[in-house]
Amino acid sequence: MERTFIVRGDIIQAPEKERIEEHGDSYLVVTDGLVEGIFSSIPSRFSHYRLVDCRGHIVMPGLSDLHVHASQYQFRGMWMDEELIDWLNRHTFPEEEKYRDRDYAERAYRIFVDDLVRSPTTRASIFATIHLDSTLVLASYLEDSGIKAYVGKVNMDRNSTAGLSEDSAQSLEDTQSFIERTEGWTNVRPIITPRFIPSCTDGLMKALARLAVDRGLPVQSHLSENRSEIEWVKELCPDSTSYADAYRRRGLWGATPTIMAHCVHSTGREEDLLAMDGIFIAHCPDSNANLSSGIMDARRYLDAGCRIGLGTDVAGGCSLSMLRAMGDAVRVSKLRASCVDPSLKALTLAEAFHMASVIGGSFFGKVGLFEPGWEADIVVLDESGIATTLEDLSLSARLERVVNLKSEGAVMHKAVCGRWLF
Amino acid sequence: MERTFIVRGDIIQAPEKERIEEHGDSYLVVTDGLVEGIFSSIPSRFSHYRLVDCRGHIVMPGLSDLHVHASQYQFRGMWMDEELIDWLNRHTFPEEEKYRDRDYAERAYRIFVDDLVRSPTTRASIFATIHLDSTLVLASYLEDSGIKAYVGKVNMDRNSTAGLSEDSAQSLEDTQSFIERTEGWTNVRPIITPRFIPSCTDGLMKALARLAVDRGLPVQSHLSENRSEIEWVKELCPDSTSYADAYRRRGLWGATPTIMAHCVHSTGREEDLLAMDGIFIAHCPDSNANLSSGIMDARRYLDAGCRIGLGTDVAGGCSLSMLRAMGDAVRVSKLRASCVDPSLKALTLAEAFHMASVIGGSFFGKVGLFEPGWEADIVVLDESGIATTLEDLSLSARLERVVNLKSEGAVMHKAVCGRWLF
Repeated sequence: MERTFIVRGDIIQAPEKERIEEHGDSYLVVTDGLVEGIFSSIPSRFSHYRLVDCRGHIVMPGLSDLHVHASQYQFRGMWMDEELIDWLNRHTFPEEEKYRDRDYAERAYRIFVDDLVRSPTTRASIFATIHLDSTLVLASYLEDSGIKAYVGKVNMDRNSTAGLSEDSAQSLEDTQSFIERTEGWTNVRPIITPRFIPSCTDGLMKALARLAVDRGLPVQSHLSENRSEIEWVKELCPDSTSYADAYRRRGLWGATPTIMAHCVHSTGREEDLLAMDGIFIAHCPDSNANLSSGIMDARRYLDAGCRIGLGTDVAGGCSLSMLRAMGDAVRVSKLRASCVDPSLKALTLAEAFHMASVIGGSFFGKVGLFEPGWEADIVVLDESGIATTLEDLSLSARLERVVNLKSEGAVMHKAVCGRWLF
Repeated sequence: MERTFIVRGDIIQAPEKERIEEHGDSYLVVTDGLVEGIFSSIPSRFSHYRLVDCRGHIVMPGLSDLHVHASQYQFRGMWMDEELIDWLNRHTFPEEEKYRDRDYAERAYRIFVDDLVRSPTTRASIFATIHLDSTLVLASYLEDSGIKAYVGKVNMDRNSTAGLSEDSAQSLEDTQSFIERTEGWTNVRPIITPRFIPSCTDGLMKALARLAVDRGLPVQSHLSENRSEIEWVKELCPDSTSYADAYRRRGLWGATPTIMAHCVHSTGREEDLLAMDGIFIAHCPDSNANLSSGIMDARRYLDAGCRIGLGTDVAGGCSLSMLRAMGDAVRVSKLRASCVDPSLKALTLAEAFHMASVIGGSFFGKVGLFEPGWEADIVVLDESGIATTLEDLSLSARLERVVNLKSEGAVMHKAVCGRWLF
């Protein structure tokens, strides 16, 4: 009965991208981790359920972070004055090398997982590092935390720093080991994670593609984040018609559910591939600003019906907060409209909310909505500390204030699949 | 002796725009509100001074907010899905109309001033509304708070909503009354505040210009925030060669110290006027994103030696935090470089810090730096709640983390001109 209860509170969700649905002082009924529905009073058939009283607080679906590097959490919010390549070489790669040491990984991943638990994220697709042992540490902490996550042991067998490069056979073997050693786990599942085209040989990519299909595992990687990266891929893959096509030719494109992060500079044919092949796009607005990547055209993908969710991309992004990612997505879309293409309307709060909950959630199952039969991922917000207003606010306005003014430390309770984490 | 003391802590400042100066575990000596200097140990001549022990905490100069609307604070962080004109008509003007009621003003300004006290701002240039009584309420709360502020009774005698329009003579008379009734105050001084060209007749503008010069009062207004606004000014002032020139012809341009907020779309001749006439530019990055105004070219003004500081522009901007304004200034400058003009380098943390402290501070006097003889505006930061790192961080990296991850609620102590507010 632990995962069977009723939450009373101000319930809000974004069932469609155009629409935020508000249920002031209502009841969310959950049976064995699955949603029964939202009710204005408790139906008699549920009257014996335990009541979780969150009256006066916003109750919203959990958010899904489609792209985050756990191994970069130690330096989030820092060193943002550097350009991408310097930032990678001076900070990102040296930091990731430290995860060769299991002890370091234990201490660093402990901090990451504890903070992720306190964040509005209930589902995440996570990059670890190339190191098998450390990646298992991260996976085990997540498994115990109750957050549902895909965790990727990263593959890198070329064009990497000396301390962060694998032998191709070992890379594949370690990936297989990671898959085997997490088999049957409840919360964590493995995801095939070639860092990106430049850091993986064709041979490794093709072997990873076979592994993904054989084991029915999803895939995550990076696509068209930065112009010089795209030029590099062109040089490396002269046979490919686009960066996306390079993944496709190597078999790592939509054969199983696939997340591609960024897609800032995807054009024409690549856009078509993203749409046609049902690729999940992880839009990471803060990271794309911090690393001077640009502003992706979220409006176009969203209107085309693409599967575009949001990612924090820590540590390119500063914060683990998906609430902040929602605000950032809206803000940068306005800057794109004013600086690049005024014909494209900015994103709305409803759209960003829908992306962070429903679209992102669909990578993980029936997640992100309080509809009958959906998994009960629930976030209860703490609005304290945002100055009082003299007049009552709508639920949407209250959510918008949290998004814009209290994206850190705003979660007071969280449940994943009906299990309360705190 | 209240304003004479020594602060021990990790002292950081940005004396030049290229350089953040770090003094780990050092002593800031203050005599009667003025800085004596930063020392690595306490000089014997100051050994009898009271010690304020902030060991382990960042001690930085107070920040100067060059542009903020106190009367919009009630709805900050909300209604950001609307375009500028809808946003003004549906929310901003109806909200400002409420300040006709002194009781409402008392309740709303109390919240604003209390939050401003808790913010990293020690000096601010503030818009109230057209209402004399309410503006006096705001001024008196600020006077008592200890924050040093310029407060403007707003002038609007044309093109305004019915509830927010003044008779020209009354507008002038109320402005004069506001000036007289705040004469001799310690912390608050009046500032001449025509809302912007479209909302003031030429006659009123010219009378305000005379008033500014006669009383030696500074001026604040808005300039080139939005393209349709600029077109409107062109229609209203066919004789002027630019929006800036329209202010200049009406005498409200640099005759006394002048702040112009935004300057997002200033070009050629207008840029020259801003530089030549020593106008203070209030760069408001968050507001310019939220209202789809665009990204102003801060790099160009900064490199040209212009007086460009930062403003929060609440409620176009979401937050009162000038720490957040620093982070936003860096971030949008990167988006400008990636989306508009890659030849212009993004702002650095040092530059944003210098703008928020030294350049902005210079509007208020010798403010924003811990140099001998400068006024001791001091902010002590609380870094708690930002997850621990496994390795020690430089002072700059710690400041950057606060800017990017804890811009709200980050101030643990604050002094203005040597007087501790908390």
